[in-house]
Amino acid sequence: MPLAFTLAELASLTGAKAVEGACVAPLTGVAALAEAGPADLSFLGNVKYAGAVATSRAGVILVPVAFAGQPVAGQAFLRVDNPSYALALLCSVLESRLWPRPPAGVHATAVVAGSARVDPAAHVGPLCVVGEGAEVAAGAVLEARCHVGAHAAVGVDCWLKPGVVVGDYCVLGARCRVQSGAVIGSDGFGYEPVDGEIRRIPQIGNVVLEDDVEIGANSTLDRARFSRTVVGRGTKIDNLVQIAHNVRIGRQCLITAQVGIAGSTTLGDHCVLGGQSGVAGHLTLGDRVKLGAQAGLFEDVPADGFMNGTPAVPFGLERRLVVLSRRLPDLFKKVDSLTASLDSARRQPT
Amino acid sequence: MPLAFTLAELASLTGAKAVEGACVAPLTGVAALAEAGPADLSFLGNVKYAGAVATSRAGVILVPVAFAGQPVAGQAFLRVDNPSYALALLCSVLESRLWPRPPAGVHATAVVAGSARVDPAAHVGPLCVVGEGAEVAAGAVLEARCHVGAHAAVGVDCWLKPGVVVGDYCVLGARCRVQSGAVIGSDGFGYEPVDGEIRRIPQIGNVVLEDDVEIGANSTLDRARFSRTVVGRGTKIDNLVQIAHNVRIGRQCLITAQVGIAGSTTLGDHCVLGGQSGVAGHLTLGDRVKLGAQAGLFEDVPADGFMNGTPAVPFGLERRLVVLSRRLPDLFKKVDSLTASLDSARRQPT
Amino acid sequence: MPLAFTLAELASLTGAKAVEGACVAPLTGVAALAEAGPADLSFLGNVKYAGAVATSRAGVILVPVAFAGQPVAGQAFLRVDNPSYALALLCSVLESRLWPRPPAGVHATAVVAGSARVDPAAHVGPLCVVGEGAEVAAGAVLEARCHVGAHAAVGVDCWLKPGVVVGDYCVLGARCRVQSGAVIGSDGFGYEPVDGEIRRIPQIGNVVLEDDVEIGANSTLDRARFSRTVVGRGTKIDNLVQIAHNVRIGRQCLITAQVGIAGSTTLGDHCVLGGQSGVAGHLTLGDRVKLGAQAGLFEDVPADGFMNGTPAVPFGLERRLVVLSRRLPDLFKKVDSLTASLDSARRQPT
Repeated sequence: MPLAFTLAELASLTGAKAVEGACVAPLTGVAALAEAGPADLSFLGNVKYAGAVATSRAGVILVPVAFAGQPVAGQAFLRVDNPSYALALLCSVLESRLWPRPPAGVHATAVVAGSARVDPAAHVGPLCVVGEGAEVAAGAVLEARCHVGAHAAVGVDCWLKPGVVVGDYCVLGARCRVQSGAVIGSDGFGYEPVDGEIRRIPQIGNVVLEDDVEIGANSTLDRARFSRTVVGRGTKIDNLVQIAHNVRIGRQCLITAQVGIAGSTTLGDHCVLGGQSGVAGHLTLGDRVKLGAQAGLFEDVPADGFMNGTPAVPFGLERRLVVLSRRLPDLFKKVDSLTASLDSARRQPT
Repeated sequence: MPLAFTLAELASLTGAKAVEGACVAPLTGVAALAEAGPADLSFLGNVKYAGAVATSRAGVILVPVAFAGQPVAGQAFLRVDNPSYALALLCSVLESRLWPRPPAGVHATAVVAGSARVDPAAHVGPLCVVGEGAEVAAGAVLEARCHVGAHAAVGVDCWLKPGVVVGDYCVLGARCRVQSGAVIGSDGFGYEPVDGEIRRIPQIGNVVLEDDVEIGANSTLDRARFSRTVVGRGTKIDNLVQIAHNVRIGRQCLITAQVGIAGSTTLGDHCVLGGQSGVAGHLTLGDRVKLGAQAGLFEDVPADGFMNGTPAVPFGLERRLVVLSRRLPDLFKKVDSLTASLDSARRQPT
Repeated sequence: MPLAFTLAELASLTGAKAVEGACVAPLTGVAALAEAGPADLSFLGNVKYAGAVATSRAGVILVPVAFAGQPVAGQAFLRVDNPSYALALLCSVLESRLWPRPPAGVHATAVVAGSARVDPAAHVGPLCVVGEGAEVAAGAVLEARCHVGAHAAVGVDCWLKPGVVVGDYCVLGARCRVQSGAVIGSDGFGYEPVDGEIRRIPQIGNVVLEDDVEIGANSTLDRARFSRTVVGRGTKIDNLVQIAHNVRIGRQCLITAQVGIAGSTTLGDHCVLGGQSGVAGHLTLGDRVKLGAQAGLFEDVPADGFMNGTPAVPFGLERRLVVLSRRLPDLFKKVDSLTASLDSARRQPT
């Protein structure tokens, strides 16, 4: 972290009620209690780890106001109401200093089409491309090497990290945040067999991200066959996720890494899909549906359903099946033993 | 869709036999019956959805010639022989208007090596790089920010979307279509242990895509250790797919999203691999082999085999095992009950 | 391969003890015995394939010194101590000729920030971006269109293929090799629910690759929430792998394609994760832990553990469970038959 803070600055940023002790060096990092060194700030987020404070080498530790211990030599305690909250506060400040909003304007090496409308309050970084008819709204940040295709729109205060591709005609709402390498608006995978060959079906729709959507690195969202592939307001998508054409994802969903959602499937609001899980095409998932990591879902799920396994079944059943399947060796033995008993019983004269 | 069509234009484009009613606005979109609004065209693709026509708000609906209903006020019907085919026809026209072939020539910001041969009838977009000795054939389109490595070749009428990487020495046949972020020709993952360290094995082969191959967004195809990694003519590969070094894929295969094929495996023609499935290395799959979604294949499969599950078994067996495994709770109970019966029988005086 | 070698050159490069026969054409490729043509070199790596030598069309074949056969007309044998080693030697030479180190210097189209320090002995290719305060060390190669973010550091002799993204503040040790499209330093996927919305948790840490780490194409490594996401010295990561925030991977591990490791998990040294496997968050894996392909791990594993299946269990148990589960149809029949026998026994008068 190329930042250095004095103890006084940290006390002010974290709203500390009291400062005890003194640290030697300016603070340049944040680390867990066990890993922190004299130039790191650490924190006691959960009282059950209180013992780790005594042995921590951290230069500064955020502790609850009522915490019993005292700092060792060369160490400072900042006593705060809630160390986790204080840390979050501090991290937000650190983030805004580590990633200051770049200045408005278009870098000299960016290639912006004549008919594109880039708001004067937007930032278009080096070697970006903005296509014909595209719009980049006020406050939007396109870091280096981003692509905004023809007639695409990037909303107010969006932040695109280096190397994002927004395909032609795709639309990003306000405050979307997209990590490097994500592709929004690749062609849907639509083919049909014609005379023994596989013929491509035109994919003429687009992708719409509503406000406050976040997309992870190298994730791919296919444009609709026609109409729209939609990601609802506030939904967060992790890295390497595949969203196929015509998928509709509701609001405030969490789609974790390497998930795949096949074509035309619809998710409600507040759904959570575990890592590497997959959802087959043309399904409907209600609100608040959860899917376990690596699960494979092949059927509709009503609201509040929690499914797991491949093919996915309700979570409780899946847990039970896993337990029972591990007892298969015993079951086989038991059945063999039963068979033997019955055979022996038969051989006995009655 | 930044296009607007009059009813007359649509009738002409779809080969309509009759036009009934009239729509209010110019048509600017295509949508399903239930979702379409007055500015959308929709279609009755399957007679079983005929009921949805009456309640659709679509401005224009493609219906079969003999369809019984009538348009409501402000709505038009285009009566056609086959609404699905008419729609496909229309979508093809729309696609060619939405993505007109860019003009021939090399953008001023592209970096083309002195020894590269770019056909005058090719399009090389902004900020592309074409390496030494590379060839870009007539009609090829490199959208913005594509990379064609040294001594690589891009065939006639290929279309590379923004941000594609074609590695050094790799070869694309005619009419290949590659989505954004795909990497063709990354190093194979080849290592050997040497004195407790892991040493890289040189990967000096290339990747060859035969004619009419399509590759999805952010998919990765590794160059061969030596010789070639090959994707056969007409095969289509979806997003986020991993093809390892020395894999040989036959013709007209469909490899869906997030599939992984490990090194040196060979697929026949017309194979279909379901989403998130994986194929181990050094296997041979015959023609028309199918693999279910999320399946993990660890053995050779003869022609026409259909495998599912992990580790994959023939589809019918896998379906049966799934059904039986869900009955495990009953089976355990039954065995317990049998055990109890037998014990009780034994305790009875005979 | 745009290289051509004479027989004499090949004999010298492979340290041949004897040359027999003569090939017609200059050699331009390397291929397996069954696939090689007159312009290819091939090799007998394993004596059990000796029969394939007689029918091979290869122009030159590397054979053991004591090999009994003779070359056919238009074919040469190079007799060497160890054909596999001789081939490796040759491939290393070929690789260094196919990928000569590009000259030192910064391409005119690269965008290098004023405060960045690029060593004069580094190569920065066309259309690269190097951010403020970043360092690129001597001997490092940034091929075209790479991004090195603000205050990031790329170590001595690193080699970044076209289109790599090294995020702000991230650090690559010496001799790291990164394939195209890899993203090192995307934001961690950290969110918390606040008043029914999902709020982003700042991710202010970085990613550190120690020396000799290799990263595959389109893989993604998230920066830590704070502190560091670490990949240990000599570890190799394949394509499309997801490494979440705060993961710590030990030294000399092999992480194969499409693996996902969730947040805060720690791996020891010499671990091997099979393709498409997943590791849940906050776990600890000891040294030399192995995980089978597609396995899903949800618990800690001590050193030398080998786990498989989802949810993963020790390999031996998993193999046994697979075998038994395939015998479920028989087991169900057996239990039905037992039930019938017992019923029939009961109905008999005693």
